[in-house]
Amino acid sequence: MDQRKILLIIFDGLGDRPVTELGHKTPLEAAPKPNLDWFAANGMNGLLDPIGPGIRPGSDTSHLALFGYDPMKVYTGRGPFEAVGVGIELEKGDVAFRCNFATVDEELTLTDRRAGRIKDGTEQLAKTLDGLKLGRVKVLFRAGTEHRAALVFRGKGLSPKVSDTDPHEEGKKILTSEPLESKGKATAKVLNTFTRKAYDLLKDHPVNRARIAKGEAPANMVVARGAGIAPELEPIAQKFGVKAAGIAGVTLIKGMFRAVGMDVLDVKGATGGLDTDMVAKAEAAIKALKSYDLVVVNIKAADLCGHDGQPSEKIKVIERIDQMMGHLKTDLGPDVIVALTADHSTPVAIKDHSGDPVPVTIFGEGIRVDEIPHFDERSVARGALGRIRGQDLMSILMDHANRTEKVGA
Amino acid sequence: MDQRKILLIIFDGLGDRPVTELGHKTPLEAAPKPNLDWFAANGMNGLLDPIGPGIRPGSDTSHLALFGYDPMKVYTGRGPFEAVGVGIELEKGDVAFRCNFATVDEELTLTDRRAGRIKDGTEQLAKTLDGLKLGRVKVLFRAGTEHRAALVFRGKGLSPKVSDTDPHEEGKKILTSEPLESKGKATAKVLNTFTRKAYDLLKDHPVNRARIAKGEAPANMVVARGAGIAPELEPIAQKFGVKAAGIAGVTLIKGMFRAVGMDVLDVKGATGGLDTDMVAKAEAAIKALKSYDLVVVNIKAADLCGHDGQPSEKIKVIERIDQMMGHLKTDLGPDVIVALTADHSTPVAIKDHSGDPVPVTIFGEGIRVDEIPHFDERSVARGALGRIRGQDLMSILMDHANRTEKVGA
Repeated sequence: MDQRKILLIIFDGLGDRPVTELGHKTPLEAAPKPNLDWFAANGMNGLLDPIGPGIRPGSDTSHLALFGYDPMKVYTGRGPFEAVGVGIELEKGDVAFRCNFATVDEELTLTDRRAGRIKDGTEQLAKTLDGLKLGRVKVLFRAGTEHRAALVFRGKGLSPKVSDTDPHEEGKKILTSEPLESKGKATAKVLNTFTRKAYDLLKDHPVNRARIAKGEAPANMVVARGAGIAPELEPIAQKFGVKAAGIAGVTLIKGMFRAVGMDVLDVKGATGGLDTDMVAKAEAAIKALKSYDLVVVNIKAADLCGHDGQPSEKIKVIERIDQMMGHLKTDLGPDVIVALTADHSTPVAIKDHSGDPVPVTIFGEGIRVDEIPHFDERSVARGALGRIRGQDLMSILMDHANRTEKVGA
Repeated sequence: MDQRKILLIIFDGLGDRPVTELGHKTPLEAAPKPNLDWFAANGMNGLLDPIGPGIRPGSDTSHLALFGYDPMKVYTGRGPFEAVGVGIELEKGDVAFRCNFATVDEELTLTDRRAGRIKDGTEQLAKTLDGLKLGRVKVLFRAGTEHRAALVFRGKGLSPKVSDTDPHEEGKKILTSEPLESKGKATAKVLNTFTRKAYDLLKDHPVNRARIAKGEAPANMVVARGAGIAPELEPIAQKFGVKAAGIAGVTLIKGMFRAVGMDVLDVKGATGGLDTDMVAKAEAAIKALKSYDLVVVNIKAADLCGHDGQPSEKIKVIERIDQMMGHLKTDLGPDVIVALTADHSTPVAIKDHSGDPVPVTIFGEGIRVDEIPHFDERSVARGALGRIRGQDLMSILMDHANRTEKVGA
């Protein structure tokens, strides 16, 4: 059997529910998307429950599932993936948090949860906190995109069972971290010490003096959430016998790639925002398929429109996705199995992830092509693939790529 | 996100197989049912395997699954649910049986397994047995509807691993209960003592003297089956964060409601028989939705026609169900997610439950309405919901009601 390459494109938050102002169509149903439809018409289609029917996934847990891992077993929190995403190499026992640079007043009340969406100077601020020693615990701190950052505690006896310091709402005071189990006591104490220290070290930092002088919100606090312990994941090279790479704009997804042992490919213009250069990502993927067996691409933009509750913006993003798919269509070699899907639905009506299943299309040589003309939530439900679980997708793709081991003889 | 209410209507035994005398249609396909079809046409449809594909469910196990529990893990026998259904509060370690009042001759040979379907006097008979002490074991005994009753043994070291005393066939002798595992030894002994004692106490009971005088079969024996230990079920309020109530005619289903912590709402005229007042149940459900988040209604009648092998009666029941759905349609608020399904198929051709999947329709705001015009076994198979497991239904409904927690971030 000839082994094939696999290109998995994950359109973040693409799935939706019917929208009244779109004539009860979903954004996918309402958008003109000849190229996505071409893949559906020439592929095998179905619905995919990222984690399980009705289960509302995070982007982290759903990506784990789409990579073939059981998130219910291996997921301990988002922090570790954010930390890996910003380039921290986690060690066993490390506890990691996702953080925001934020603005507080003198009473430590949150006045801006994103420090005015600070863009510049965060690396200098991070350097002030990175390497701190709090008792026997070493602090690793790294800036991500904009106001985002990752915090890691390294030391003995740490536990991820602690509550957030992030009050999640402006106008509220920074929270004191509490242990969620008795073994979380020491870690909660370290996190509270770190939080106080961060304020002391950041409030008069030159970067913040300059911001205040310009009338900008100073990044004088760090709020932490999503504590998790470094997960032990079987590398994807070992699990499926493939050399794999990932392309994404956002830190978290890069962290997901690294955590399963994929190479992370940096693409100029891939920001993870609405301004991301999708065509550059597609071209990078085509190029990467020359040296990798599996290439995963995450396109974040549709999810942002879902969270913002903007159906017309989501349609525009889908049109841009479709242009990208047009490029891909012409550049794709005959030896590639392509899968198009989403990590979850982010319905514009609810502005958050939902448990609704997402469309999935598999395209390539030897696929049982069905008669589904459109790539959308309702059309694919009648497809030859039926309704599958996210965790099964990678095995299905590996099988179509003739890369699986026989179970039995 | 706006949280919605959920109305789950379970048509007991509604699913069927094609029937030759109905021109190879199922009763659902043959019956005129404009209102059920209206819900299908304006809803999202699919097939549901109550427990799993090809698994032949009981009403108890399938209800557990439809409430989101794994019956393969939590179910230990029907007895406990019957006992809870007649109002016995089970304690940890209690072993419960479902029982019939029956008629035996002097050699303890079964002559009528339902004691002439006795209707009156069973509470007096039950009082004679309730509270007995057999060694260190306390007996709790309560009459249900007609010939049905529940028996509970309370004491230390009891086990449900014992065989039935019910021979299940008239003309056979009452069986001696045998331990199915060595730890069932003591319990089998107690059950045999109870059985002998029941005969001694009931045979000359005034209720039975009067029956004999009237030429009716005396209820002079109790036959036991379905031993089970009190199950430990996470209350549904905790599992899904909802305040829930159930409406049903039959004892077993009331027991299922109580066992998962639902309030049981009594509805006048809801008998669980063919004469049940379905419209009263629908009206009670609409009213209950004002103060509960989740209301479950069980309509038993279709199952009875299946067990009796009466396709034309089953069609008549479906027409009555349809009238009930007509009432519901007009009274339903816009904030309710409605699910219509069955707990299992009871094909008239086999007069018992089968493992065939059942139709399921989900109706309400934000649902991906598909193009299925009819609520029947074959039409819904092409719907946007695909084929789901009973255990996943509650999660799907909670998600549509915007009541789920995100897994991951």
